[in-house]
Amino acid sequence: SSLFTSPHTSARGFRNLPSASIPAMAILSEVATEVLIPLAAVVGIAFAIAQWVIVSRVKLAPSLPGVRDKDVMGDSLIEEEEGLNDHNVVVKCAEIQNAIAEGATSFLFTEYQYVGIFMSIFAVVIFLFLGSVEGFSTRSHPCTYSKDKECKPALFNALFSTVSFLLGAVTSVVSGFLGMKIATYANARTTLEARKGVGKAFITAFRSGAVMGFLLASNGLLVLYIAINLFKLYYGDDWEGLFESITGYGLGGSSMALFGRVGGGIYTKAADVGADLVGKVERNIPEDDPRNPAVIADNVGDNVGDIAGMGSDLFGSYAESSCAALVVASISSFGVNHDFTGMCYPLLVSSVGIIVCLITTLFATDFFEIKAVQEIEPALKKQLIISTVLMTVGIALISWLALPAKFTIFNFGEQKEVSNWGLFLCVAIGLWAGLIIGYVTEYYTSNAYSPVQDVADACRTGAATNVIFGLALGYKSVIIPIFAIAVGIYVSFTIAAMYGIAVAALGMLSTIATGLSIDAYGPISDNAGGIAEMAGMSHRIRERTDALDAAGNTTAAIGKGFAIGSAALVSLALFGAFVSRAGVKVVDVLSPKVIIGLVVGAMLPYWFSAMTMKSVGSAALEMVEEVRRQFNTIPGLMEGTGKPDYANCVKISTDASIRQMVPPGALVMLTPLVVGTFFGVHTLAGVLAGALVSGVQVAISASNTGGAWDNAKKYIEAGASEHARMLGPKGSDCHKAAVIGDTIGDPLKDTSGPSLNILIKLMAVESLVFAPFFATHGGILFKLF
Amino acid sequence: SSLFTSPHTSARGFRNLPSASIPAMAILSEVATEVLIPLAAVVGIAFAIAQWVIVSRVKLAPSLPGVRDKDVMGDSLIEEEEGLNDHNVVVKCAEIQNAIAEGATSFLFTEYQYVGIFMSIFAVVIFLFLGSVEGFSTRSHPCTYSKDKECKPALFNALFSTVSFLLGAVTSVVSGFLGMKIATYANARTTLEARKGVGKAFITAFRSGAVMGFLLASNGLLVLYIAINLFKLYYGDDWEGLFESITGYGLGGSSMALFGRVGGGIYTKAADVGADLVGKVERNIPEDDPRNPAVIADNVGDNVGDIAGMGSDLFGSYAESSCAALVVASISSFGVNHDFTGMCYPLLVSSVGIIVCLITTLFATDFFEIKAVQEIEPALKKQLIISTVLMTVGIALISWLALPAKFTIFNFGEQKEVSNWGLFLCVAIGLWAGLIIGYVTEYYTSNAYSPVQDVADACRTGAATNVIFGLALGYKSVIIPIFAIAVGIYVSFTIAAMYGIAVAALGMLSTIATGLSIDAYGPISDNAGGIAEMAGMSHRIRERTDALDAAGNTTAAIGKGFAIGSAALVSLALFGAFVSRAGVKVVDVLSPKVIIGLVVGAMLPYWFSAMTMKSVGSAALEMVEEVRRQFNTIPGLMEGTGKPDYANCVKISTDASIRQMVPPGALVMLTPLVVGTFFGVHTLAGVLAGALVSGVQVAISASNTGGAWDNAKKYIEAGASEHARMLGPKGSDCHKAAVIGDTIGDPLKDTSGPSLNILIKLMAVESLVFAPFFATHGGILFKLF
Repeated sequence: SSLFTSPHTSARGFRNLPSASIPAMAILSEVATEVLIPLAAVVGIAFAIAQWVIVSRVKLAPSLPGVRDKDVMGDSLIEEEEGLNDHNVVVKCAEIQNAIAEGATSFLFTEYQYVGIFMSIFAVVIFLFLGSVEGFSTRSHPCTYSKDKECKPALFNALFSTVSFLLGAVTSVVSGFLGMKIATYANARTTLEARKGVGKAFITAFRSGAVMGFLLASNGLLVLYIAINLFKLYYGDDWEGLFESITGYGLGGSSMALFGRVGGGIYTKAADVGADLVGKVERNIPEDDPRNPAVIADNVGDNVGDIAGMGSDLFGSYAESSCAALVVASISSFGVNHDFTGMCYPLLVSSVGIIVCLITTLFATDFFEIKAVQEIEPALKKQLIISTVLMTVGIALISWLALPAKFTIFNFGEQKEVSNWGLFLCVAIGLWAGLIIGYVTEYYTSNAYSPVQDVADACRTGAATNVIFGLALGYKSVIIPIFAIAVGIYVSFTIAAMYGIAVAALGMLSTIATGLSIDAYGPISDNAGGIAEMAGMSHRIRERTDALDAAGNTTAAIGKGFAIGSAALVSLALFGAFVSRAGVKVVDVLSPKVIIGLVVGAMLPYWFSAMTMKSVGSAALEMVEEVRRQFNTIPGLMEGTGKPDYANCVKISTDASIRQMVPPGALVMLTPLVVGTFFGVHTLAGVLAGALVSGVQVAISASNTGGAWDNAKKYIEAGASEHARMLGPKGSDCHKAAVIGDTIGDPLKDTSGPSLNILIKLMAVESLVFAPFFATHGGILFKLF
Repeated sequence: SSLFTSPHTSARGFRNLPSASIPAMAILSEVATEVLIPLAAVVGIAFAIAQWVIVSRVKLAPSLPGVRDKDVMGDSLIEEEEGLNDHNVVVKCAEIQNAIAEGATSFLFTEYQYVGIFMSIFAVVIFLFLGSVEGFSTRSHPCTYSKDKECKPALFNALFSTVSFLLGAVTSVVSGFLGMKIATYANARTTLEARKGVGKAFITAFRSGAVMGFLLASNGLLVLYIAINLFKLYYGDDWEGLFESITGYGLGGSSMALFGRVGGGIYTKAADVGADLVGKVERNIPEDDPRNPAVIADNVGDNVGDIAGMGSDLFGSYAESSCAALVVASISSFGVNHDFTGMCYPLLVSSVGIIVCLITTLFATDFFEIKAVQEIEPALKKQLIISTVLMTVGIALISWLALPAKFTIFNFGEQKEVSNWGLFLCVAIGLWAGLIIGYVTEYYTSNAYSPVQDVADACRTGAATNVIFGLALGYKSVIIPIFAIAVGIYVSFTIAAMYGIAVAALGMLSTIATGLSIDAYGPISDNAGGIAEMAGMSHRIRERTDALDAAGNTTAAIGKGFAIGSAALVSLALFGAFVSRAGVKVVDVLSPKVIIGLVVGAMLPYWFSAMTMKSVGSAALEMVEEVRRQFNTIPGLMEGTGKPDYANCVKISTDASIRQMVPPGALVMLTPLVVGTFFGVHTLAGVLAGALVSGVQVAISASNTGGAWDNAKKYIEAGASEHARMLGPKGSDCHKAAVIGDTIGDPLKDTSGPSLNILIKLMAVESLVFAPFFATHGGILFKLF
């Protein structure tokens, strides 16, 4: 039934085929493709800048009294004017924001320095390992999939892989850093806008999130696009080599993301847990109280962990799914046939995604308006639905325009025929699976529904039952997402093999700009609340930022759900690409090499989580000691007359996270190298599959459990229902039990859970990049014995 | 290199082979085998009875004052005589023991009634499903593996499978029930002996554990042996059919174990958590205080959960690993060649195990003597080492005697040659992997080492850090056991395919009598402590029983480690047997049917844990309400003048556990049926592999985390070191934080964790039993679309 039994049978691609079998070319011309992709990226960047300009209109420096009064009075949307003219507040907010921005910048610079050294070493490793495949020969060699064609020498593949690795790393750094800059630019502005009402504050936080979302999506696409076009100058007709080298981009992006997530995650939670344990539990002062010495570190943490870390992570997913799709496509009929438009289908999907998200954003910023607290969550949820519906149309359109009606896909040794509508279905099922995961996550982590309310209710009998119910909730929340992922895998795999899975992952990530917008919105609101508290703003302002923050917790959980779901699909696609590239035809569970890989691979998420959890625990203990020391030694600190030493707490978090991110990082980076080199590609395939199937569960349950505890606490604090008031108020026994759950959830939801995405993706992409080496030199141990 | 390329090529087994290739027969004759196995079983039973007689010498009825005085004075081992002559104490102990025994008996009877109905229905399902394979035809059919031989009709296989299923279920019930009876017979006796010193108490508890261990091991072996011999009367030469039918024994044992573990687990932890939450946390009364209305329910729980549940569980493992080994052997050269001694090798290993364990027990009861508290844990640990070392010699001996020097094993479509020393290595590696798992578990859960002490130390900053450190400890404790299991799998798989894995599992379980002895010792000591407290015995007695109990927590964790490790190997062996029987040659991860199975299978342990954790949580909440109600409404209860209504608490635990064991039970029992019927054997193979690799991790981490928390609490309470005294005493903030951790750990270590063993084993053995049905009629959904 397939066109080719093997790609090797026909010389020079499709030329030998009977003309009836030659697939029709796409409607979209190569020139149009070459224009469309960069255009979409540039439009996205322009939109981001426009949003940034709007946010920057909120002035942080106090203006002249007269002018300001006029401004304010002329604004018909203002709900109340409380404290609007208090210059001191504005100055204080600006000060705090500066302190946060400084802390975040200095941490990221320190982190990048250390990671930079590591990246350089790893770049050399990539070059040496891949270069050694053909003994550093500079001669061309027959292509893997078309033996009668000449492909570029392995040494140059090694060189270009190294270059794209560094490019991915730099793009990831830029993505994370820009996100952090924007967030720390926006948080005090959100606080100030909260004086004018919840709608104003929401829109400021949301626009700022959008700046990050669009910059990141557009940037990732643009750099990849330019890299492909530049590499093509050297590679010419050798698309196999070209797109294999491009996979380095995914590896670079993901390696940076690993350290960003782990380092940032440890930073933010050490500070958060440390601040809460002494502040809320021992000293009974509110969250974000300026007397707490760890409060600045806590707010810095939100920016380096949740913003920069999340940005790097999702950029990594995006880069990897694009690379996985491209490398699989390069050995399909697109690659063999040199159909550039078909080849660029993954990039075209992302381009359409940017435009769709742009329209979606307008629904939140311009077409509708938030007037009350209860409208926040629905508005954010609407973003998900609108973008998904529009994107479905967009995918249909681009599948029709950019794909030939029929084409063939490489499927572990044989070719498989796929139609453009089949591929549309693959992308669409990924997209909708993402929406389902988002909805389920929301159901399990929002305090509007019974699961979180049950957890809150369990606080009646203390922290222990709270924790038991929370853990059970996390476990339960895994069920539907896994079924959604399984259906997505089955359908896309059946239609278009690993290419189907790669584009399904891409489909889930196609609305990444919107996803990141609502995701970044969370920590910005969290910080805005912190700044309001620290600046001594009124209770009403704090209530508004709290409402923004509660919605942010849910969106953060949704974002993590997306990140994990897409990571599962991406790593499966990368796994498929690795297996193809390593020349493995079957990964048989009934072989001892594979089964031990599977068992050990399934253990890795636990090993990794043990490290990250313990790191947070130890760093938090250090932080607790320091905060206690300051409360005990600085005179007048509790009374508000003494000034805490914020910088020392920032330093503790920085040092701890830099030091402690090394072991988990090493575990993830070294495992594929060690397993591939000593045990060979079959065991490595087992490890990847094991880590994937086990890691997804741990990651989803950890992040939902944490999110649920956080919102159960917020549910009791807000006291918005009869039931909640029975459990509250702040400071009651129930509330104390809820705080304990929240603290336990911190490292689960913000450190170990989300880092696991990267574990499963990174091991897969690393295996893919090193596949030629493992296939040639790997499995030393089994060769010896 | 193999003797046969396919078992089908030679008619009537080995007859067509050149004589040089005919494997030598074993040294041990068939008659000797027929004598040795039942003899070992009978010796084991006799030994158990002897131990029981010794325990029964401790009189529970107060003797005449004169006689007793003489007795006491004549006993040179008595360390002190505190309260020895207090008749009231003896009467009270007897009363409490009766109450516990009654509660346990009544619960088990209720449980067995409900489960009995279920088992009857399931027996019908087995008969109908398996009978339908050949349309209920009563004609013989060609054998699966030797097409030219006639095998018995499927309808009779269905009938005998059903019979052996019921036999397994009944044996499991007997095992659990006897264990419970012995434990409730021994606990007050242990308390009374504690008056004479820690050594006396230890030996009473240990002997009682031995009664259970030996009865269970011998009973399981004897019933299986008799069943095989009876079935042989019908099956004659058709060993394929005979041993396929025998697998029903494993399914029956494991199905009972599932309900025993889940029902008992919910019972014990609902009572325990409920009692602790009100008693220790709210009312500040000690554990096991007679004023606490849930105290009897709590002690009943130890007997029905930890004793009866654990007994059924390990009996299930034993039955399954024997069945897996036998069914694989039946299509090896033993089966084809009708070499009865070789065929019975798995049973012979178990027979040797009983004798070895008997000698090992003497080291604890007769050769050495415990004089101080610190000697308890080393004595128990020594049991593990001695039994392992002796058993290694025993296995070598029986491998040499019972196996031909060379034989062949069926390996997914081809035959593989194995030597007797190769098979010895398989069994030995399983045995030693078990020891390693035991040691690692001890290291992570005993408060003599730094991991638990670190967890205790984390209590300084409250419950949250305690929980974070405990979770990290559990995750970390997975690493070495998984490597041990992986090495065991690799070596035994490489040497003798799935037969190697089956005998490795059997090797791990070969010292089951010793394992169960030290395991049952734990809850008996726990109960003894409870009785001492309730009977109002002195602080010194309570200290001794506490020391016994702390060692018991560790041995319980070790027992769980064994149970999980062996479950992993057993289910892998069953998986292999299933795959062979279903005619699957390759389980390829790169096929969509398998990968979705893998992903969903890996999710099942989470789904299952969510149910069991939530069940415990809800049942505990009910219990808390009831206990609070009694404290609030019964006058004089706190002062000790009113009498609590123990029976009502027992009823709540009973009702809750019976009601709540249904959904998780249904999940496990229905999954293989649904997946096999609708999605077919490939997806089912994926589900089994996924559940296995993911479930092992969840189970190990859950039970070690729970054990560590429990012992961290005990570490603070005992105050045996400078560090521990700094954290204590009872009632300090640190101790309160530790109690919260302990409570959270209860359902993890005693309900969801250990039940997961059964999940992975049961799904595998069920798939094996139903394999012919799935292979014939399964995969309806894929056939339709």
